Formats: sequence, C-alpha cells, structure tokens
Amino acid sequence: MSKPLILVINDDGITSPGIRNLVTVMKELGDVLVVAPNRPQSGMGHAITVGDTLRLKESTLFEGVRAFECSGTPADCVKMARHYVLKDKRQPDVVVSGVNHGSNTSISVLYSGTMSAAIEAAIEGTPAIGFSLCDYGNDADFSHTLEYIKKITQQVLTKDLPKGVALNVNFPAKKKEALKGIRICRQANAKWVEEFDERKDPNGRNYFWMTGNFVNFDKGEDNDEWAIANNYVSVVPCQFDLTAHHAIPILNDDWKILG
Amino acid sequence: MSKPLILVINDDGITSPGIRNLVTVMKELGDVLVVAPNRPQSGMGHAITVGDTLRLKESTLFEGVRAFECSGTPADCVKMARHYVLKDKRQPDVVVSGVNHGSNTSISVLYSGTMSAAIEAAIEGTPAIGFSLCDYGNDADFSHTLEYIKKITQQVLTKDLPKGVALNVNFPAKKKEALKGIRICRQANAKWVEEFDERKDPNGRNYFWMTGNFVNFDKGEDNDEWAIANNYVSVVPCQFDLTAHHAIPILNDDWKILG
Repeated sequence: MSKPLILVINDDGITSPGIRNLVTVMKELGDVLVVAPNRPQSGMGHAITVGDTLRLKESTLFEGVRAFECSGTPADCVKMARHYVLKDKRQPDVVVSGVNHGSNTSISVLYSGTMSAAIEAAIEGTPAIGFSLCDYGNDADFSHTLEYIKKITQQVLTKDLPKGVALNVNFPAKKKEALKGIRICRQANAKWVEEFDERKDPNGRNYFWMTGNFVNFDKGEDNDEWAIANNYVSVVPCQFDLTAHHAIPILNDDWKILG
Repeated sequence: MSKPLILVINDDGITSPGIRNLVTVMKELGDVLVVAPNRPQSGMGHAITVGDTLRLKESTLFEGVRAFECSGTPADCVKMARHYVLKDKRQPDVVVSGVNHGSNTSISVLYSGTMSAAIEAAIEGTPAIGFSLCDYGNDADFSHTLEYIKKITQQVLTKDLPKGVALNVNFPAKKKEALKGIRICRQANAKWVEEFDERKDPNGRNYFWMTGNFVNFDKGEDNDEWAIANNYVSVVPCQFDLTAHHAIPILNDDWKILG
C-alpha cells in the first residue's frame, strides 16, 4: 500500500504550535498537505466565506511539507484543499484538524472551527479527526498528546470510520503518566453561560467583551466531560445529520396544522 | 395568559426585508424584541466572537418595537439578548430567526447563521424556529410565507417543542396557491460541491470566488429537499447533540487501543 495522503487543517492559524505538533506526527504516517488559516479562527464554528473573496498563498513553514495559508475559515480550508489544491487529483485518506489550543468537549463542538473542519471532511466522505488539548495557553505542553494522536490516526487509517462520522478527540492538560487511556464517549450535556463585560472606548462609546462560564448538567460517566475530568483521552464520534429523529413522530402527532 | 415575549434574530442583517416581514408577523403574536447583526452574516454557521469586542446599538428601524443592532454573529445576538439585554429579566417564550433570503435545507443547516441562532436558543432551553425562503433575491416575495410563519409560531407557543429541539423551516419560492401545506421532514442527504473561480486583482495577485453546486443524493420522500421540490413547507426538527450514537458500539468493538 502506498503512503496515505494526510490533509492537516486547524483553526488557531498556520503559525500556532498546535498544528506544528500535528504535522510532526503526521509526517511519520504519510504524505502531508497543510491548508490552514492565515490567522486565528477560533470560535468560527462551521462558517464559510460567502459574498467575499478568498486568498491562498504557498507557505514554507513546514520543512518538506507542501503547505498553504488561506484567508478563509477552517471549513473554507477543507473546501479549497479538496476542490482547488487537489482538484482532479488523489484526495486525502484522512483529514486531521488541530491540535487546538483549548477544549472542544461537549457543546463547544458547535463553536469549534477545529471540529467544523473535521465535519466538513466527513461531509465529503473522508475519515476525519479533530484533536484538541484542554489547555488554552500558548505555551501549552503537547508532548503527552503525540503518541495518542499517532495511535488514533493509525487506527482510523486501518479501520475506516462509519460513514459520515468525524471524531472529536480531546486531551486532558496533564502529564503523560497521569493519562489512563482512550474512552469512546458521547457529547456531554453542558453549556456556556455568558457574561458581558461592558467598557467604554476612548471616545466614550460602549463595547463588550463576552466571557463565559461552563456549566455541566451531565451526571453520566459515558460522556467527554467525565472522561477528561478522569484523565482519559475522550473520543466522540460526531455526525452532520442534525435531524432530531425522535421528534418527528411527536410533531406529526401533535401538530394540527400539517398539510 | 400574558402576551408572549418573542426574540427576533436573523443573519442577513437588521436592514433586510426578511426580518422586516418576520417582525410584522410577530407583532400580531406578542411583545417583540429584535437583536440582529448590523451587517450581513450569511454562512456564519455557529460562529461566535472570540478574542474580539462586541458593539450593541439601539435601533429605531421597527416601529413600536425595541430593537438592537449587534456587531457580532447570529449566535452572539442570541447570547447578548439573553445575557445582556434581558439579563435578570423575563426570558423569551420563543426565538424566531430569519426570514432568511435563501434556502437552508439539507446540509446548509450547518453553514446557516439563521439556524445557528435558533440552535443557540435551543441550547438555552428556549423553543426556537429558523425560517428561510428558497429565494436568494433581494426582491424576494415573502407574502406566501407570512400565514405559515404565524401558524407555526402559534403552534410552538401553545405546544412546547421537545427539549433541545429547534425547527428548520423552509419555504418554496412559489406563489401561495401552489403551496400544498406543511411537512415534518428529516434533513436530506446532500452536499455542496465547490468550484473556485480564480482571478487576478489589479496588482496581479490571485484571489478566488467560491461557488458551489448543490448535489442531492437522497431518493427519499421524507426529507426537506423532497418537500420543497414538491411545494410543501418543510419543517426539520434539529438537535445540538452531534454524537453519532450508532458509532459508539462500533468503535468500542473495533478499536484495539482503548484504555
């Protein structure tokens, strides 16, 4: 079998330490192509560039690796990689996104550019994994994640994921010795409760910083929050069908206004 | 029972005809608060403003209606409405988003700022509906949608939605007489295949316009694409738990690397 082709994306931007670590691991596993945002795109969710133009520039940041920086969102990067850089060429065997500086557990999966890139790849039919380290610091230590990233990616390359599934992998911000292994989880039931810090600019006009407190309602032991709190690497299989299938018969029974 | 409090959001921006139509209908149903983006935010998905500031300005655009324009994304607007404008006050009985200029059927739900606002409200535990008209024109005719919007919102106000569910409602771009009624649907299995139109700017540097072709793989008659093509108003109940629950036992069986 020829070497796998691995597309690497992130949302913190092409210069962030997280993507550097990810590229280092992926070079051991296959041929690597990087298409990553040219600036931080945290919290971009599944945004795409509509009604505006895109730029793409070749980058020499990664030794021996073909790389591009893109002016768009993480989801744009996947689209440009597939339908421009690799147009009419061999498509990636796996798409890996990250390593994100900060947690993408639970509800954060919705806001996450890292995971949106992975989900975009899953829509395209490519196995995809988003990796996040639960440490927001720019000096975060990724060393304990590398061996797991390699194992998980190898697993995905040898055993295809179920169709339409992307993995949301989170790492506790712990030393290697503390980690207890990998757990397959569901997305925890939790949310952010925002606060708005109101300030005045030098011209006396109001502006706001949004800050949030994470509130976990989930008492289960099969979810990603529990796994991270208990020193496991959490793996949540995610899908892009948002249909609340259980609600369809309820609405069909309840609603008197159907045609 | 006192009049319901209705929060109105959109993603095309506070000046768009779609939100004006929505506010007009909602004024018949309850007390209305508008918090909408101060510029178009199409394709913003579930983006939120991270690492940057937000502005909020009172608006007099809607007669007799308290309204604010916000510098953030549709999801930011929901957060600012709940946790700033309505902080420590009565919270909305329903959140309605739109009416979007353009379809949000099928996979477009992921890219849609309209639906992300609705899903953000569902995360907060508020019944929520995103309305979209399958017509991208700025001169789109909304007249056939108004009666349905009223009926559907009344239905949601009188019969609560299942917990954690937001509705994705799409209208065919047809005359009123052509419409056959409302159908509860699942999200169709379809995707966008992008093309990149490469051009040169006046300085000779490359830039791109992303264009896309919608490809529908779905042969079913219970999905939103089928409904729209057959002149029904489509209603897809959506959830924010992205877990591919069916994949959990598969991964637990297949993977040899679990701790």
